[in-house]
Amino acid sequence: MARFLKAKKEAIGLSPYELRFLGEQKLDFVKLRLINYSEDQLEERELASISEIKDFQSEDAVSWVNIDGLHDTGVLEELIAELQIDKLVVADVLDTHRRPKLQEYENCLYVSVKMLQFDDDEDQITSENLVLVFNNNLLISFQERVGDVFNPIRERLRKNKKRIRSSNADYLAFALLDVVIDNYLHIISRLGEKIEDLDDELIEKPSSDSLVKINTYKVEISYLRKIIKPCREMIQNLCRLDSELIDESIQVHLDELRHNIEQANEAVDNYREILSDQLNIFHTTVAYKLNDVLKMLTIFSVIFIPITFIAGVYGTNFENIPELHYKYSYFIMWGIIIITVLIMLWYFKRKKWL
Amino acid sequence: MARFLKAKKEAIGLSPYELRFLGEQKLDFVKLRLINYSEDQLEERELASISEIKDFQSEDAVSWVNIDGLHDTGVLEELIAELQIDKLVVADVLDTHRRPKLQEYENCLYVSVKMLQFDDDEDQITSENLVLVFNNNLLISFQERVGDVFNPIRERLRKNKKRIRSSNADYLAFALLDVVIDNYLHIISRLGEKIEDLDDELIEKPSSDSLVKINTYKVEISYLRKIIKPCREMIQNLCRLDSELIDESIQVHLDELRHNIEQANEAVDNYREILSDQLNIFHTTVAYKLNDVLKMLTIFSVIFIPITFIAGVYGTNFENIPELHYKYSYFIMWGIIIITVLIMLWYFKRKKWL
Amino acid sequence: MARFLKAKKEAIGLSPYELRFLGEQKLDFVKLRLINYSEDQLEERELASISEIKDFQSEDAVSWVNIDGLHDTGVLEELIAELQIDKLVVADVLDTHRRPKLQEYENCLYVSVKMLQFDDDEDQITSENLVLVFNNNLLISFQERVGDVFNPIRERLRKNKKRIRSSNADYLAFALLDVVIDNYLHIISRLGEKIEDLDDELIEKPSSDSLVKINTYKVEISYLRKIIKPCREMIQNLCRLDSELIDESIQVHLDELRHNIEQANEAVDNYREILSDQLNIFHTTVAYKLNDVLKMLTIFSVIFIPITFIAGVYGTNFENIPELHYKYSYFIMWGIIIITVLIMLWYFKRKKWL
Amino acid sequence: MARFLKAKKEAIGLSPYELRFLGEQKLDFVKLRLINYSEDQLEERELASISEIKDFQSEDAVSWVNIDGLHDTGVLEELIAELQIDKLVVADVLDTHRRPKLQEYENCLYVSVKMLQFDDDEDQITSENLVLVFNNNLLISFQERVGDVFNPIRERLRKNKKRIRSSNADYLAFALLDVVIDNYLHIISRLGEKIEDLDDELIEKPSSDSLVKINTYKVEISYLRKIIKPCREMIQNLCRLDSELIDESIQVHLDELRHNIEQANEAVDNYREILSDQLNIFHTTVAYKLNDVLKMLTIFSVIFIPITFIAGVYGTNFENIPELHYKYSYFIMWGIIIITVLIMLWYFKRKKWL
Amino acid sequence: MARFLKAKKEAIGLSPYELRFLGEQKLDFVKLRLINYSEDQLEERELASISEIKDFQSEDAVSWVNIDGLHDTGVLEELIAELQIDKLVVADVLDTHRRPKLQEYENCLYVSVKMLQFDDDEDQITSENLVLVFNNNLLISFQERVGDVFNPIRERLRKNKKRIRSSNADYLAFALLDVVIDNYLHIISRLGEKIEDLDDELIEKPSSDSLVKINTYKVEISYLRKIIKPCREMIQNLCRLDSELIDESIQVHLDELRHNIEQANEAVDNYREILSDQLNIFHTTVAYKLNDVLKMLTIFSVIFIPITFIAGVYGTNFENIPELHYKYSYFIMWGIIIITVLIMLWYFKRKKWL
Repeated sequence: MARFLKAKKEAIGLSPYELRFLGEQKLDFVKLRLINYSEDQLEERELASISEIKDFQSEDAVSWVNIDGLHDTGVLEELIAELQIDKLVVADVLDTHRRPKLQEYENCLYVSVKMLQFDDDEDQITSENLVLVFNNNLLISFQERVGDVFNPIRERLRKNKKRIRSSNADYLAFALLDVVIDNYLHIISRLGEKIEDLDDELIEKPSSDSLVKINTYKVEISYLRKIIKPCREMIQNLCRLDSELIDESIQVHLDELRHNIEQANEAVDNYREILSDQLNIFHTTVAYKLNDVLKMLTIFSVIFIPITFIAGVYGTNFENIPELHYKYSYFIMWGIIIITVLIMLWYFKRKKWL
Repeated sequence: MARFLKAKKEAIGLSPYELRFLGEQKLDFVKLRLINYSEDQLEERELASISEIKDFQSEDAVSWVNIDGLHDTGVLEELIAELQIDKLVVADVLDTHRRPKLQEYENCLYVSVKMLQFDDDEDQITSENLVLVFNNNLLISFQERVGDVFNPIRERLRKNKKRIRSSNADYLAFALLDVVIDNYLHIISRLGEKIEDLDDELIEKPSSDSLVKINTYKVEISYLRKIIKPCREMIQNLCRLDSELIDESIQVHLDELRHNIEQANEAVDNYREILSDQLNIFHTTVAYKLNDVLKMLTIFSVIFIPITFIAGVYGTNFENIPELHYKYSYFIMWGIIIITVLIMLWYFKRKKWL
Repeated sequence: MARFLKAKKEAIGLSPYELRFLGEQKLDFVKLRLINYSEDQLEERELASISEIKDFQSEDAVSWVNIDGLHDTGVLEELIAELQIDKLVVADVLDTHRRPKLQEYENCLYVSVKMLQFDDDEDQITSENLVLVFNNNLLISFQERVGDVFNPIRERLRKNKKRIRSSNADYLAFALLDVVIDNYLHIISRLGEKIEDLDDELIEKPSSDSLVKINTYKVEISYLRKIIKPCREMIQNLCRLDSELIDESIQVHLDELRHNIEQANEAVDNYREILSDQLNIFHTTVAYKLNDVLKMLTIFSVIFIPITFIAGVYGTNFENIPELHYKYSYFIMWGIIIITVLIMLWYFKRKKWL
Repeated sequence: MARFLKAKKEAIGLSPYELRFLGEQKLDFVKLRLINYSEDQLEERELASISEIKDFQSEDAVSWVNIDGLHDTGVLEELIAELQIDKLVVADVLDTHRRPKLQEYENCLYVSVKMLQFDDDEDQITSENLVLVFNNNLLISFQERVGDVFNPIRERLRKNKKRIRSSNADYLAFALLDVVIDNYLHIISRLGEKIEDLDDELIEKPSSDSLVKINTYKVEISYLRKIIKPCREMIQNLCRLDSELIDESIQVHLDELRHNIEQANEAVDNYREILSDQLNIFHTTVAYKLNDVLKMLTIFSVIFIPITFIAGVYGTNFENIPELHYKYSYFIMWGIIIITVLIMLWYFKRKKWL
Repeated sequence: MARFLKAKKEAIGLSPYELRFLGEQKLDFVKLRLINYSEDQLEERELASISEIKDFQSEDAVSWVNIDGLHDTGVLEELIAELQIDKLVVADVLDTHRRPKLQEYENCLYVSVKMLQFDDDEDQITSENLVLVFNNNLLISFQERVGDVFNPIRERLRKNKKRIRSSNADYLAFALLDVVIDNYLHIISRLGEKIEDLDDELIEKPSSDSLVKINTYKVEISYLRKIIKPCREMIQNLCRLDSELIDESIQVHLDELRHNIEQANEAVDNYREILSDQLNIFHTTVAYKLNDVLKMLTIFSVIFIPITFIAGVYGTNFENIPELHYKYSYFIMWGIIIITVLIMLWYFKRKKWL
């Protein structure tokens, strides 16, 4: 399937309320993890089924349910039944190829973004869909795979950093989005370093290898842009959103988020331009070196072709060639050859080829 | 006629109220199909004439009339007479080369989009104009040809999926547009896959065949853009529209539609950029390989041209060439030749050509 | 003078009220035609002077005065005197190199656009300025030349099509603008057809002729853009205009006009992009074919240059060349030559040049 | 100093109220000219000092003071003292490298634009800063040099054209700006003519001279853009300005100004695009001609290299070359040569190289 | 680390309230300088610790505290404690890789910009983060390094220029920002001068050195753009800001600031375009010169290859070559050679190659 847009034939004409998994299955099990916290307690647990959530929820604590693996629609139907989540929300979660979006539902906010991983050796970025659905004291995060970038947040929760433990689920949602976008910045800067390192290589010794690199980086930067542009739109909407599920004190942090995604966006645009410039410089350098190669060929050819002809003429076996019999003919020939060469050299000198 | 813009000479100066078919006739008959449905019944029928519609319409049911073939203005005049549709609406339907548009009339909404087909072997996309005219309980769809992408909707209607059967014609209109745009996404992703597959080919073995492919895909992507950009504008207008013919509950679905067309639009822009990059990479690769070819030519020429000249000189038949008579002249010549060659090789080595 | 911008030195510092003709004179006479119509009568007439208009005007009829030829400022001064037209309006009419514009005056609307003609053989588009000045029952059209695209409108007037005959001058103005813009679309589609036909030619047999065509079309498309972009702006202003000289029932038609000019604008942008792509493809194809040419030259040179050298060595006339006297030397030389050639061929095979 | 941006080191950190001349001094004196006019009288005078202005000013007349040369801050301090002009205004006048701008002060309007001169032989545009400061009956124009484009306005003033003599200083300001922008249009059209003339040259005989021209024009067009873009912004602000210093009757003329600067802006963008296209066409033409050159070289080389080798083989002096002794060998050799040549020709024919 | 975007791995998931230095440490000490001023006194001092500030602050004087070196979070914690600055503000100061931004806090304004230095020999621009935090009578400036561009401001403060000494901290903040942006303009103009100087070099003698320069300048211009674009956004926000910490009289100066950053932005865009044009011109010039080189090679080859072949034929040693024995054969051969050469020369003449 195409990496930049995935749209399965089966998705055409599906009812928006139908629960059908439209991504690629990346796990063969579903893993449910719950972190329950308030200012003075924190509890972590693996759950066997959605129904257990209710046992741990309490009025004054925030529950963070993390679901890895989305292929099992049974689990999600339970979610609808147990936690009164709109069927439309869950159907949306199942289409993992959606653009990042923000949707306000009656009793919850729906936020989806892409999480990125960067394989440093292959220079390839892969993405995974993350959906956060939250109200005041419940946040559910849906991931396609086990393993994420949220460990710093879990650490902050465990170490009782006062701000995060005493806030509602909206602060947790912000913290998760913040990590995702910080990770964008980090990946861009790692890729950017490689791109900037290309600069010297390109003028000094442009090789076909540099071309492969330029191409690889261009594709990855395009991929990043594809991810970041709609994410930026989503974050802007989030900043403008006037929902009672988002506390006023969060606004300053959301502004920070917007600043970061803006910076990511600008950096990607910068690197895209730099890569275009690099390709142009490469192309021009190659064209310039070609000139050198051909000047050399031309100088040698133009000097030797006429004198080789002269020698050829006196290699003919005609019976009557008067010149052959004069005593100094051979030396005169050499004289003519040398004069010819000198004229040519003078000519190339004047043309600044030498 | 031009594929990107079709504008017949006959269309110039036509009254906006004149019923004249301005497309290409793609059928030699007109086919009328009616689906009449409410929550608890559904009836499908082929109609012989427009006047039959009235027999089946009822207050509490929605009627979907599908008309394939637009060349017969008689049928359309009947429509005006029987169903009180504005003449301006019908005249518009007949100009199939229009941009997608949304128009609000007194008693109905007019929506036109292009439906796409993708021929996988020829890599060619063709389009057909679709017009939807609807009010609360009647939707008329106008197509140029028999055959469409609406079968999933017909199936959903028949299988009594509760949402679609209990809603008004506005939900049907949304469902039809949704299928059309899902189909865009599917076609883009099929084309996109081919484009992304080109990437490796281009650096490893750039052939004139890759060039043909790049060109073909560029034209198709431009064609898609031409279709999608005004469609996006139309969908945005639809989302902002404040009409009593569109129920409030539809808004969330229209937002989804806007998200999808936005995704289609972004994907097309991405692929356009990728193709431009690919062409640049191809061009640069070709220029780079040229350098290789010419370095080889130059090395061989520069080495052999001088030594061939030396041999030529001693092939002359002058009577008096002293060197010819020394015993070791021949071997000295070989020595000079070998030294010349070694100097040249050292020179090319130093220039990093070898 | 430059085709894309004409600005005479004499125009600098002219008072905006001065009546001086700033275009090129294209006629040596002035032709005045009057069509006077109401729902039940129509009268056509050639006028000798402006003053005659008054004789034919009546309260309940619309008068359309068409003036071909603008160089005679006397005629225009009569217009100011007889019909109470603002001097500023008439001074504007005389500067035929203006951008299309819409201006609301106290008692009339001023609309100017460019009319296009397309010379199919020369592939050249020429333009002429058209100014419409109208109030409720008088429309004056100013043209630089005899001959226009308005015959379909005159036909509709004569044949008593009910809409046009029973409406005010605003409908006539719309109808005239509609013809002008339909004509744009027609010209773009004729040029577009030629552009799309280039596509195959470019990859199969790129000739310098294709290059001339690309260049010609690019210039014409730029010219069209120059005409259409300000016209689009003007039409948008017209749609937004809140003037009592434009009846509400005209709005739906003006929207149509906006749709058409939008389509023209998009088509021109599309074709511009297609031409840029075509030039890139052409350039890359040429570079690619160069590779082929030079591979051939290199293969022949690299194979024959060394073996010609070998033959050259044994063509020297040294007295003491031992090899010459061995019985099989000649055949050994052939053997060496053949082995050299085979090695070269194997090498080129491995490099995928053959 | 850089032509596109001039920013002196001394300007850094200067107080906005400090009177220091930051331009290049272009005169070694200051010239003050006064034109005093009302509907029925006009008086022109050279002034020795600013203080004389008061002697000539009267309630019902407009005074136009023109100052050539800005290096003498003494003169400007007098201005502040005598005419109650804000120090900030005068400090601004002294920084001649500012962008065009419009500023509303308590008792005057400040407008600055660039005046252009075009040297037709050098194809170089130079600019000079013009500042207009005006209230109801006083307009001061500041120029860096003697000599301007305002003579048509002075003529209109002298010849008692009724409009200009009976209006306030705002009309004079409009008239001066109008001349400046008309002059832009004239210069663009002169440059444009040269650009359009290049078109034929480029395909028929592309020479390095055309390249020099393209480059020169590109730089000048960029320079024009740099001047015109902020000027356009300034004119737009002027049109939107709601100041009592600008009479309502001027609005229609300001709209005209906006139209003209818009036209200048569009023309510059057009010519920029045309020049880019021309460079691309030039480059592609050059690449195409290279193909021709190299096809010729390849054809000759490929035909003659093998047959020269054959001749070379039979020029060797081996004792035992059986072929040399057969009677018809020489003619057979010719046969082989001719057949080889024919095969090559047929091959090139098939490849469409001939 | 990448120069265009620096994002450390440690920054991911950090709490927004955590004080951790995320820049590169550029000093190994912290330097605190205080300037305390009012209309009639000024006091400068180096401070040992933050707590000393309180000793010098007074109601009617403005205090400017400059902090060089940000790595010591102890100093900053003191700041929070002593001066009631929000922890969020200080945490922000520590992340020196942020985009320029403006944030309004309850009791202060936070403004960050980049200060630039230009190394004229290396043609490299380096940047340092500057943060200004101010309320009515206190301004704290945070720098990463000792040494800045603020000396002109300190001079103005010392010399008792009336405006600056009698204003609040907002005027000081404006003056500091003004210096920073004037410095941008100065750096751009120094770089611009070098870019404009390239123009002649490129057409007359394009060398690989020019290519290196173009590349270097392109990177620096991109770097400037990266710095200036978000700064422009920040200044625009500052102009629109409605805060009581900014006096109304400052508005006219902020407008000036906006004008300057706008000019910087336009200049950078201009130079970027000029560099792109220069690279294109360079590339085309190189391609054009290649044509010259190859025409020369082709002319020599095409003339000498056939005549060398003729000489080669009569160098063969066949026993029976009738021509060899005719008396004038040798001269006839010369005749044929000369005629061949003349035909070739005529052919090249006709092709305009000579």
